[in-house]
Amino acid sequence: MCLSGTLEDKVAAAAAAGFDGIEVFEPDLIASPWSPAELAARCAGLGLTIDLYQPFRDLDSTDPDRFARNLRRLERKFDVMAQLGTSTVLVCSSVSPDAVDDPGRLAEQLAVAADRAARRGLRIAYEALAWGRQVSTWDASWDAVRRADHPALGLCLDSFHVLSRDGDPAGFAGVDPGRIFFLQLADAPHLRMDVLQWSRHHRLFPGQGAFDLPGFLTHVLDAGYAGPLSLEVFNDVFRQADPARTAVDAMRSLLWLEERAAAGRPDLGLPRRPAAPRLTGHSFAELAVDGVSGPRVGDVLAGLGFAHTGQHRTKPVQLWEQGDARVLVNASVVRPAETGVAEVAALGLESADPARSAQRAASLLAPVLPRTRGVAEADLSAVAAPDGTQVFFTRTVPDGWPADFLPTGVPRDAGAGITAIDHVGLTQPFDSFDEAALFYREVLGLGPEALTEIPAPFGLVRDRAVTNAARSVRLTLTASLLRRGEWSPGVPAPQHVAFRTGDIVATAHALRAAGTPLLEVPANYHDDLDARFDLDPARLAAMRELGLFYDEAGDGAYLHLYSGVLGGRVFFEVVQRIGGYDGYGAPNAPVRMAAHRRARLAVAPFG
Amino acid sequence: MCLSGTLEDKVAAAAAAGFDGIEVFEPDLIASPWSPAELAARCAGLGLTIDLYQPFRDLDSTDPDRFARNLRRLERKFDVMAQLGTSTVLVCSSVSPDAVDDPGRLAEQLAVAADRAARRGLRIAYEALAWGRQVSTWDASWDAVRRADHPALGLCLDSFHVLSRDGDPAGFAGVDPGRIFFLQLADAPHLRMDVLQWSRHHRLFPGQGAFDLPGFLTHVLDAGYAGPLSLEVFNDVFRQADPARTAVDAMRSLLWLEERAAAGRPDLGLPRRPAAPRLTGHSFAELAVDGVSGPRVGDVLAGLGFAHTGQHRTKPVQLWEQGDARVLVNASVVRPAETGVAEVAALGLESADPARSAQRAASLLAPVLPRTRGVAEADLSAVAAPDGTQVFFTRTVPDGWPADFLPTGVPRDAGAGITAIDHVGLTQPFDSFDEAALFYREVLGLGPEALTEIPAPFGLVRDRAVTNAARSVRLTLTASLLRRGEWSPGVPAPQHVAFRTGDIVATAHALRAAGTPLLEVPANYHDDLDARFDLDPARLAAMRELGLFYDEAGDGAYLHLYSGVLGGRVFFEVVQRIGGYDGYGAPNAPVRMAAHRRARLAVAPFG
Repeated sequence: MCLSGTLEDKVAAAAAAGFDGIEVFEPDLIASPWSPAELAARCAGLGLTIDLYQPFRDLDSTDPDRFARNLRRLERKFDVMAQLGTSTVLVCSSVSPDAVDDPGRLAEQLAVAADRAARRGLRIAYEALAWGRQVSTWDASWDAVRRADHPALGLCLDSFHVLSRDGDPAGFAGVDPGRIFFLQLADAPHLRMDVLQWSRHHRLFPGQGAFDLPGFLTHVLDAGYAGPLSLEVFNDVFRQADPARTAVDAMRSLLWLEERAAAGRPDLGLPRRPAAPRLTGHSFAELAVDGVSGPRVGDVLAGLGFAHTGQHRTKPVQLWEQGDARVLVNASVVRPAETGVAEVAALGLESADPARSAQRAASLLAPVLPRTRGVAEADLSAVAAPDGTQVFFTRTVPDGWPADFLPTGVPRDAGAGITAIDHVGLTQPFDSFDEAALFYREVLGLGPEALTEIPAPFGLVRDRAVTNAARSVRLTLTASLLRRGEWSPGVPAPQHVAFRTGDIVATAHALRAAGTPLLEVPANYHDDLDARFDLDPARLAAMRELGLFYDEAGDGAYLHLYSGVLGGRVFFEVVQRIGGYDGYGAPNAPVRMAAHRRARLAVAPFG
Repeated sequence: MCLSGTLEDKVAAAAAAGFDGIEVFEPDLIASPWSPAELAARCAGLGLTIDLYQPFRDLDSTDPDRFARNLRRLERKFDVMAQLGTSTVLVCSSVSPDAVDDPGRLAEQLAVAADRAARRGLRIAYEALAWGRQVSTWDASWDAVRRADHPALGLCLDSFHVLSRDGDPAGFAGVDPGRIFFLQLADAPHLRMDVLQWSRHHRLFPGQGAFDLPGFLTHVLDAGYAGPLSLEVFNDVFRQADPARTAVDAMRSLLWLEERAAAGRPDLGLPRRPAAPRLTGHSFAELAVDGVSGPRVGDVLAGLGFAHTGQHRTKPVQLWEQGDARVLVNASVVRPAETGVAEVAALGLESADPARSAQRAASLLAPVLPRTRGVAEADLSAVAAPDGTQVFFTRTVPDGWPADFLPTGVPRDAGAGITAIDHVGLTQPFDSFDEAALFYREVLGLGPEALTEIPAPFGLVRDRAVTNAARSVRLTLTASLLRRGEWSPGVPAPQHVAFRTGDIVATAHALRAAGTPLLEVPANYHDDLDARFDLDPARLAAMRELGLFYDEAGDGAYLHLYSGVLGGRVFFEVVQRIGGYDGYGAPNAPVRMAAHRRARLAVAPFG
């Protein structure tokens, strides 16, 4: 149930992503035209084992008549398992309203069922659902298994059910060796809600949520478990997303989990992978343009104080520089029929070891991009991020990638005071928001910050930054909380490139002197700043005059300004960070979005 | 915040839907280029009053220094209100982590603020947020207002905050007359989750949730409140939906609320509206077809035992009949370039008084459809449902709508035993699922049943039936839980028309004898039926042989079979209800969906 589609779709996706085996979820099989034997044959052909049949519900804690009927039902499922060639069935704790609270009867009925299983050469993995009627904790499930004391009866441990109930995985050490029959892994965000709804809608793959899955796994392995690591993730988004893609995301989460567990416990003998090389900064942002949007982007960059310093030796790519901020304007990408579009196509990230960064990305299932190399072109290692953005691992040295650009002769002067790229904002596809955070953390070693929700004018927007420890690499990832439909006036959160300045008032004056058009900020916004903050009147007057946004947190502050949206997809921001301000001015985002919409409805100076 | 868009979008939508006034939500104003005075002038021009300015947060329960700063902030907002020409500001209970639990200080600071308001001719409506730090119930907010005892200080009552905390609105009778300054209304489903998240994401308009809004309103009116009925609905879907449409839905919810309150309390002098005339059955289902799909639909109807008994006098519309089941096949609708499409375009519902049904619908803001009348055509009253389906109110008598059809001479014989339309299944647009339930209840008098979620192969599907008391009119409404994106192999829940038979085994034999192609049911499905139910082996064998689905509940059962999907949009179902079975075979829906997908991937015999 991690994957969308029919059983046929799911099996294909799991095999393609490199999984060794699958659980068969009964409803999938029931809806499939493949007989159990046919499914087994197809799986074998794809190199997949069938490791579990599930779920069998409401077996126990009932009266003898009903239990007899349940055993009959169980025998029918044993028939299916025999055809599938799988030996283990998951029995979950009863949720029946009339399940009796009688540990003796529970153990006795489990033992009877286990005996039936043993006669068929099968075994039962008993799992405590977090919302089970009488058994809702793993301790209680272990108590039942211990009492039943049958060799064909063991535990299925599910990290969600254990951790959502604040269960202590350290207790697994007290489980008899060999009695953990199966392990299901799921992460989840911390949510204060009914645990059933939390489980059915909001689970995530390991590393995407708030649970300590590496710690959990270590305890299970310490307890002697040597079976499959299986994922059981009920998630509304995954349920409707491309299963081929979700399966890769799922496999990456297991690779992450293995790596974390291995780091903590070298004695376990798990495979090791070299850590992500340190990233030290943004070397460039690359915009894909066409013949219409390219000159417009150039005009805006010039207006922001950038100089067109270089021209690629063999491709229609311009290098624009100001301080250590570099923008590549690339007209070589073949674009669809739509014209006038500009968008962030690539990020250059400075790596301590670009080749090793790329190797690591490839080992974690990031698509490695073919790089068409020409004469005197640097060998740039690049991978695709979940949103399709190309990520280049670079070393910005004279004989590195800059050598691909011939000087135009235009000098790189002080410009408007921009010194570097502060961050790049990337709009994520609806289906891959959670995948993205794990990707950037695992593949690039960037830490995800807290998820926030922005009450944007056209619907809630989820926003999460990923950064390196030194804060010299910052990305902000956004996606609409709900996929947008018919009423969607414009892109809800276009991409952006934010440049840093040490003095935004000076920069803004320079831009104004150059006649650079900037996003207009409504007077009501500055009136509200006046009400909310104790701002020096002269400073507030300057913000008002120059169209600056303001935020503060702790002893730090953030001042920022924006260009209009270019080509419908991308805008520029200029920011000044003061003191320890570590955010991105999120409270101002709705005002910026409304202003961008207004600008689009008006003259649309940037198309 | 009920409506999506910028302040400019919202004001336009509220005025168009006939609202008398608005609340100004501060973030909207801050993001607007309109000065407060300009907004006031625009509202006046549209006939809208500005009834409240909100929210003012974290005013009280703080130290003197911070309170002084808060008063300065409040004075700045009074400046805004003076420009807006609105007299009331909403102050909500503090959520500040360091708000002190000191009822005396709270009352004192509220009184000081109220005094500042009074000096400006303004007043403060104090509201208990359900998650307020010290004040989280309406009783506590009334206690604070009573203690502060200032004429410029009163209560804002919000139905969500009161009812989500199980507050008792009967207690409003103890509030001093005139001290309820403002009323905000919101409904919500019962959810077991953090009240802040429940409030911010899942509120609904009155009549769409589980709260007793009519009872709440009656208590507020009894307490002497005579101000506006305002809606404050935070909802993820409304936040991103077309505001013009949401505003109509909102207004309809208030008309519903007024009607319910009036029914319970004639003494209140609320306007009355004649009740919805009784609906007694499905008179017909109308499919829109084109030259490609029309003959295919005819073939399938013939295969199901229908006879083409009539031809419309002036339009390319065929009447197909079997028992009391009637299907109109209409090729007169101008269709888009896409060919081969068939879909349910209209429902005929038998009304005790068609003209009055239509009048009621119009009074409740349902779009009344122009009916092109030709010679000898019945005057059919029709309105559009939220999904665009045309709803005709009919009387099926010889001089009624059937008189528009000339007999073809084909006799209406016993066919395959189909006797009537059992239900019609309509796929709802993502943005209007909650609107639809209120529409069918209020406009047509059909009761909504419990909302269920179907774990469909390509994502969760929400499903809710609306029925009349006699169960002779049944509609099932479905929508994806998440709007579907790139990975969406086929329509997740196509529309369908379900016909009733008294003996589905006989009907299925007749269809088989006629060679009618039906949806194939996988063998695994019947194996599972065998495991789950105590079915007579002969009966199970018949189900297996004939491709019947089965469900049971209580002492009743449901047997059903399906055609393939026609024109990508619609299929037929044949059902037999046994005993008191009142559902729609929901557990079988995922199996049916997978089978329909398979049929589409295969020969696609129905196109």
